[in-house]
Amino acid sequence: MALISPSRRLRRTPFSDGVEAAGVKAYTVYNHMLLPTVFRSVQEDYRHLKEAVQVWDVACERQVEVRGPDAGRLVQLLTPRDLRSMQPGQCYYIPIVDETGGMLNDPVAVKLTEDRWWISIADSDLLYWIKGLAYGYRLDVLIDEPDVSPLAVQGPRADDLMAQVFGEQVRQIRFFRFVPLNFQGRDLVVARSGYSKQGGFEIYVEGEDIGMPLWNALMEAGKSMDVHAGCPNLIERIEAGLLSYGNDMTDNNTPHECGLGRFCNTQTAIGCIGRDALLRVAAEGPVKQIRAISIDGDPVPACDRYWQLLADGKVVGRVSSAAWSPDFDTNVAIGMVRMTHWDEGNELIVETPDGARQATVQEKFWI
Amino acid sequence: MALISPSRRLRRTPFSDGVEAAGVKAYTVYNHMLLPTVFRSVQEDYRHLKEAVQVWDVACERQVEVRGPDAGRLVQLLTPRDLRSMQPGQCYYIPIVDETGGMLNDPVAVKLTEDRWWISIADSDLLYWIKGLAYGYRLDVLIDEPDVSPLAVQGPRADDLMAQVFGEQVRQIRFFRFVPLNFQGRDLVVARSGYSKQGGFEIYVEGEDIGMPLWNALMEAGKSMDVHAGCPNLIERIEAGLLSYGNDMTDNNTPHECGLGRFCNTQTAIGCIGRDALLRVAAEGPVKQIRAISIDGDPVPACDRYWQLLADGKVVGRVSSAAWSPDFDTNVAIGMVRMTHWDEGNELIVETPDGARQATVQEKFWI
Repeated sequence: MALISPSRRLRRTPFSDGVEAAGVKAYTVYNHMLLPTVFRSVQEDYRHLKEAVQVWDVACERQVEVRGPDAGRLVQLLTPRDLRSMQPGQCYYIPIVDETGGMLNDPVAVKLTEDRWWISIADSDLLYWIKGLAYGYRLDVLIDEPDVSPLAVQGPRADDLMAQVFGEQVRQIRFFRFVPLNFQGRDLVVARSGYSKQGGFEIYVEGEDIGMPLWNALMEAGKSMDVHAGCPNLIERIEAGLLSYGNDMTDNNTPHECGLGRFCNTQTAIGCIGRDALLRVAAEGPVKQIRAISIDGDPVPACDRYWQLLADGKVVGRVSSAAWSPDFDTNVAIGMVRMTHWDEGNELIVETPDGARQATVQEKFWI
Repeated sequence: MALISPSRRLRRTPFSDGVEAAGVKAYTVYNHMLLPTVFRSVQEDYRHLKEAVQVWDVACERQVEVRGPDAGRLVQLLTPRDLRSMQPGQCYYIPIVDETGGMLNDPVAVKLTEDRWWISIADSDLLYWIKGLAYGYRLDVLIDEPDVSPLAVQGPRADDLMAQVFGEQVRQIRFFRFVPLNFQGRDLVVARSGYSKQGGFEIYVEGEDIGMPLWNALMEAGKSMDVHAGCPNLIERIEAGLLSYGNDMTDNNTPHECGLGRFCNTQTAIGCIGRDALLRVAAEGPVKQIRAISIDGDPVPACDRYWQLLADGKVVGRVSSAAWSPDFDTNVAIGMVRMTHWDEGNELIVETPDGARQATVQEKFWI
């Protein structure tokens, strides 16, 4: 691996001092911000995430705040998911598409009140799309990136750790719901959500000054639970089928290709951008789709570009994320496969930098 | 420095194989793409750039292509710079601002024909802003990111090297003009431009398949000129006062604060976004502005966050880029300083991670 050159443009976070003290070994860049990727090793971090509890600096999940009389109308304009029944206190995973149905981002919308929303974004400047639309439509809204930095607590002991810091009421928070909870005199949005399948919370830390006090409080309270600094884990997120915008999908893909058709209510989400294109896709179905793929042989190298999937010498798809899974004793991968070859059990060839390997389409992801 | 984790999301370029073979040591991430930052060392690369010629992988300067009957109207909507006299064959540096006059990007616009433009962007997803506006305004344009990857040839021997590969006519190309020149049967846009003050060209490589053939042809032709792989050099760009979006300016800054007031024709650029706000700024002048700053003492550490500038114990600005300059035997820096302290010769205190240092406002940048 090469080094990463420090600069102001690759923004630090309110938790960077804690991340460095915990011995971060590598980063990626996400929304122009540093996102840790390795502390001890990807495999050690993976084992620990599944057995204990970790605190993750995911400040790079930046928020786009939309507030004002037209806020609700604008958010519905952005997504084919029907938001009419969504209540304040709920989080919705919402695909965002352009007028052709191409994915621009796959954020979580946080409905604070009827006229105030946070959109917690994946890695693209969705702020620009939303501001451009609002200006073009002359909507009565204010849109900006607030001083809000998510901190995630993930792992089987997440409830125990969070209860120590925020009180027993955290245990009552339902999946993809949030409540405001007090920390040092400030109310913070605490949601049961996160980019793993191990359970846990995301705390929307409002005000960077409170970042390290909260980080330290969690580390102190979690000592008896073997708490460690962690980060989204490549192996675990592939096992779980958690997609990554920019890796597994781009603006060339429709939500249906990404297996997100269930979040598209194109018949009822009146007025959303991309509706016409997605009605067509919904009627005919996609011709390629995301699949879990296992890859035979030794641990694969880093998947830093698409690896072609072949059948009978012809390209039928590509792998975009891959890693060795200790728990499943195989290489786990996420791929996009043409409908001719996407059925469970189909045997394909994947072209890795180390050479061709056997690959098999799985019925579903591993966890 | 920490490591950078490879993933598909941090895109490789058509020249990555050449960059790796040349022994790249570090990267940054720019427009979701790898941008080399160091080959031999920042100081060796600097010396060589000023004395010979380098080939730079700046594929991360992605293009937004705008084409169709409303293309010209849309590009003028984007910028306060008056584009009425711009001809096909010209490149213009155009600040892009939102409705409040805040900088969203500072690209170079390349006018291919009356109804076809490339906007060669700095590090933000300007594609989203332009697509959002075009959709909101219902303009008759197509907007996408084409398969175009700039390759720069920079340094005092750039003309000689380019003449070997593209013919003697490259010497006639004027600053910020371009001509289409043939390479292996394909016409490529070749402009006299680039992110250094050492002179040179940017080749807009259309079609990724031709990337490595062109890289190799330049390396082969340049052997007698001591050609090396290079990259935008931190020291040289600060000496030259070349700003970096995300480092030295953000959407909090107006063009006038960035010293880009001469590119704002707010009286004549009719219909541009941000005009009302910028008319006000132009009338009153900015209250803070970019300045060249020298910093005393030993070489400063990496500037990975704002360093505050103080006078009489009060904050009067901040430094956003800094490096040791061998040629000027001082630390060179770019800062934003309040008008009360922005005059030449003002002595300030800068708070670096190593402690407080003396800093002095310069009349102008070094080269």
